[in-house]
Amino acid sequence: MEINGVIIEDTFAEAFPIWVSRILVTAATERLAKIAATEATGFGCSVIMCPAEAGIEKYVPPTETPDGRPGYIIQICHPKKSELEHQMLERIGQCILTAPTTAAFDAMGDEAEEQLKVGFKLKFFGDGYEKKDKLGDRTIYRIPIMSGEFITESKFGVKKGVAGGNFFILAENQTAALVAAEAAVDAISSVDGVITPFPGGIVASGSKVGASNPKYKFMTATTNHKMCPTLRDVVEDSEVPEDVNGIYEIVIDGISEEAVKEAMKVGILAATKVPGVKKITAGNYGGKLGKYQIKLHDLFE
Amino acid sequence: MEINGVIIEDTFAEAFPIWVSRILVTAATERLAKIAATEATGFGCSVIMCPAEAGIEKYVPPTETPDGRPGYIIQICHPKKSELEHQMLERIGQCILTAPTTAAFDAMGDEAEEQLKVGFKLKFFGDGYEKKDKLGDRTIYRIPIMSGEFITESKFGVKKGVAGGNFFILAENQTAALVAAEAAVDAISSVDGVITPFPGGIVASGSKVGASNPKYKFMTATTNHKMCPTLRDVVEDSEVPEDVNGIYEIVIDGISEEAVKEAMKVGILAATKVPGVKKITAGNYGGKLGKYQIKLHDLFE
Amino acid sequence: MEINGVIIEDTFAEAFPIWVSRILVTAATERLAKIAATEATGFGCSVIMCPAEAGIEKYVPPTETPDGRPGYIIQICHPKKSELEHQMLERIGQCILTAPTTAAFDAMGDEAEEQLKVGFKLKFFGDGYEKKDKLGDRTIYRIPIMSGEFITESKFGVKKGVAGGNFFILAENQTAALVAAEAAVDAISSVDGVITPFPGGIVASGSKVGASNPKYKFMTATTNHKMCPTLRDVVEDSEVPEDVNGIYEIVIDGISEEAVKEAMKVGILAATKVPGVKKITAGNYGGKLGKYQIKLHDLFE
Amino acid sequence: MEINGVIIEDTFAEAFPIWVSRILVTAATERLAKIAATEATGFGCSVIMCPAEAGIEKYVPPTETPDGRPGYIIQICHPKKSELEHQMLERIGQCILTAPTTAAFDAMGDEAEEQLKVGFKLKFFGDGYEKKDKLGDRTIYRIPIMSGEFITESKFGVKKGVAGGNFFILAENQTAALVAAEAAVDAISSVDGVITPFPGGIVASGSKVGASNPKYKFMTATTNHKMCPTLRDVVEDSEVPEDVNGIYEIVIDGISEEAVKEAMKVGILAATKVPGVKKITAGNYGGKLGKYQIKLHDLFE
Repeated sequence: MEINGVIIEDTFAEAFPIWVSRILVTAATERLAKIAATEATGFGCSVIMCPAEAGIEKYVPPTETPDGRPGYIIQICHPKKSELEHQMLERIGQCILTAPTTAAFDAMGDEAEEQLKVGFKLKFFGDGYEKKDKLGDRTIYRIPIMSGEFITESKFGVKKGVAGGNFFILAENQTAALVAAEAAVDAISSVDGVITPFPGGIVASGSKVGASNPKYKFMTATTNHKMCPTLRDVVEDSEVPEDVNGIYEIVIDGISEEAVKEAMKVGILAATKVPGVKKITAGNYGGKLGKYQIKLHDLFE
Repeated sequence: MEINGVIIEDTFAEAFPIWVSRILVTAATERLAKIAATEATGFGCSVIMCPAEAGIEKYVPPTETPDGRPGYIIQICHPKKSELEHQMLERIGQCILTAPTTAAFDAMGDEAEEQLKVGFKLKFFGDGYEKKDKLGDRTIYRIPIMSGEFITESKFGVKKGVAGGNFFILAENQTAALVAAEAAVDAISSVDGVITPFPGGIVASGSKVGASNPKYKFMTATTNHKMCPTLRDVVEDSEVPEDVNGIYEIVIDGISEEAVKEAMKVGILAATKVPGVKKITAGNYGGKLGKYQIKLHDLFE
Repeated sequence: MEINGVIIEDTFAEAFPIWVSRILVTAATERLAKIAATEATGFGCSVIMCPAEAGIEKYVPPTETPDGRPGYIIQICHPKKSELEHQMLERIGQCILTAPTTAAFDAMGDEAEEQLKVGFKLKFFGDGYEKKDKLGDRTIYRIPIMSGEFITESKFGVKKGVAGGNFFILAENQTAALVAAEAAVDAISSVDGVITPFPGGIVASGSKVGASNPKYKFMTATTNHKMCPTLRDVVEDSEVPEDVNGIYEIVIDGISEEAVKEAMKVGILAATKVPGVKKITAGNYGGKLGKYQIKLHDLFE
Repeated sequence: MEINGVIIEDTFAEAFPIWVSRILVTAATERLAKIAATEATGFGCSVIMCPAEAGIEKYVPPTETPDGRPGYIIQICHPKKSELEHQMLERIGQCILTAPTTAAFDAMGDEAEEQLKVGFKLKFFGDGYEKKDKLGDRTIYRIPIMSGEFITESKFGVKKGVAGGNFFILAENQTAALVAAEAAVDAISSVDGVITPFPGGIVASGSKVGASNPKYKFMTATTNHKMCPTLRDVVEDSEVPEDVNGIYEIVIDGISEEAVKEAMKVGILAATKVPGVKKITAGNYGGKLGKYQIKLHDLFE
């Protein structure tokens, strides 16, 4: 299959279940909301070594938020529900409660499979001076803080979502792959329900499970040597085409397989529009590890 | 003491020793370096609940970096040296190695008290295909990745620095305190050797050790109720002046007491220039907990 | 009338007809589109002294643009249609054609009252090497440039819109008025069909027609002395309330009176949510100069 | 000559005299200063069709500004001194005076060859309520405005500088040339005394004087067809190498030939570090039009 002259390989992305939370961070201005959202989702690329996977999903204008202020929906994700709750407490408590003029609301809504009492636990920061209240239908806590008052919803919904949706952008050089990756991330950012948790949404250093080097067996993940352009003539099992010198990967987490599929579709389309892109493929483990297999060709039927 | 009509209270900030690393993150462009630096320093406000304290110290132009590309110096800090090394591995490995076009160099230089072999450990990601090399006087590793090559210095210097330098900005309303806090952070950003690890450099919700509410004794930190404007007429021990309705705190970590002092000085000066600011004070524990006592009045002698 | 405790004065904003163009600037990435949109709309606050009134209206995701790339809709406005065409030629020709990876499309669509042949005139830059083509239903020109190819639609629709929709935010100090103004601009940015052409969308120095000082009669506009807080006790006709020390104005241009009204409504609502805001009013000339009179109270019926 | 494997052509950039002003725009915060600086320098790429050439030169920390607030130095340039004064009046009056919390100071200092009474003329906006004052050695006016007070220095120094310093980046594709151009602009931004006036500092559509097409003789400038990759096999006089598919130009204005040379040097060096860049050349008119001839090879001796 070709799209805009770019080969779409007949393969699939292998993805995994993950617990997902969606938190709406509002603030006095869009800029202040973004500061909090950025801090709260930092150090959140992959649970291989980060304590959570996290990212900014989308902007919500003040006309559509519970408190009439601008906000960003962020996702915090973790394979274990108990760890997710822990991460939500820490990230909301340390990165949103501490940020200027913010409030935190549940944004999972009716999609939630379970409710975590994260706001209920955060309220203890109020030292007994906090107040339980209602904002529309939402149960909230008003916590007195030095700059005024922090509002958090009492419960935050979580659900089983999908982690590790992905595709690879192969291009004639690094910069073409990079600009295509940025274009893909831009396109994905307009899809509801998904995040691209890596820095700027882009993975520069895709990995494989374990190590091929017998001396490095202690490593749980090492560089995807088959896809490293500088190793094309060094390793026997290179899969880097002759005309490819730069590869970036996009990794997508989301609240559902449908959302992740839509993100992959618009992301791939966007990437194929950048001159110099040669091929799109995806990462999988032969179907042995992940629950979800998202075939690239199916996205465009 | 008054500066620009703002009262500077005769008190001191109580600060603590912390292990500090300084890492230079370079990239093809300033913007790409900032993406990596931001991700790597996220979720890094306070070790009360974050896994590290981290922030961007300053921009370094391409004419002054080892690889002639633009970069940002970040600091990652932790009270325990072993935990700092762990955090450096995770944050460089997950947030810089994975970010487009980056490289990581030691920026502590001669100030270092010890060297951590962080790059040496990161190299195992190369699965044996990495190469040891020299860049000027620096020992580096060249690790093949999907987008090209990641360069990391082998060792990163660390030293005992200072955490928790701080001051409080009291203003007639929340917005005046906020703009003053932003002005303070802007001023501090031009001081070498320091970071302001909270979101946007600002703390909206300063805390005290433990809880005053007997039912909340399980909490290690709760809201600084004496400094909450909404509790002025509620608690008996309020220290919020009558004309104050918003308070933000600035927290500073740095490589030395001198650097933190300089940051406090220029930050306080900047804050006093914003209309509506009434008073500057600082947080301490009566001198019982911290090694460092930085007197506000001494800063301006 | 009071909203969120803020007085809404019973007055009206007086606005004027203006010719409006809506241009969609696309680029390889959202960031590159914004660079071009920002340059093209700069030096475009008020036709009192700027050559046009211009601003960024909104972001358009790649799934909704003619070329499948992200873009921004900008508006360029001028009271005279011939001058508008001139400005469009100059701003597209110098600030979009010259910007990396951009294309320019009409975004007025069916709302247009007239078509200006701006793309047709820009094509001459191609020195005869340009090609006429179709992109969907749109007639475009492909102009060869050093970095590749610039695409511009042949014709751009214009219509009579509304300039000078406005409201004033009066607050207890400058920073409260400023943050409220920023919140207003954030809210307005989600309304289709409008721009806020001043720097950051905010007017710090509202003016009156002419001068009251007999020696300054040569001035076409001077400071709105009745609304200057520092002149409250200096001038006899001050209209600054006792508890007000900072005032910002928001000025709105748009494709229709309805769009401008909606912008004023959501902007005022947002401003009233910021602590310290006391009153909202609007600027008019007693109804003598402008075609449109937008009553503040009518917005909230 | 080769640098980092990139051919540096043995040619020269041809540059022109221009009148240059340097204005320091300060504000309550760095962000607010940048908003004003951006608006004031917009629509300011080339005097071919823009009313001025303008750009942001550099950030100045609050410790180094006359009012102790953060600021940006901008340059506004025009071949005619009278037109420059006109542009300064309009851009300061409409884009800085109107922007939140700003002040405007001369930043040309002792380098000035003449003083323009721009602040003196702006003061009339005060309608007689303005006050002449001193700030250190500087003569300033305090103009009452709705948001508080605007401070402008009375006189602004101007001098004969250099416009049109330039180089071309030829790369194997558009994205490599683009990222190299961004890297060049980043490097140049750390050189004192220069601006890169085009959008994002980059020219996507370099031009030649006049037209080669006999039917287009009315055009003063058309596409540089010899350097258009898509015309390589179309025109007889193409100068695009076989392996080049994207070319961006960097244009530099500055206060002196030395400053422009330094900018060209660091910019070219930065560009050569981006993979995929093949060649650096420069634009000239055979030495017939410009006063300055800056030889590329001389920069690296």
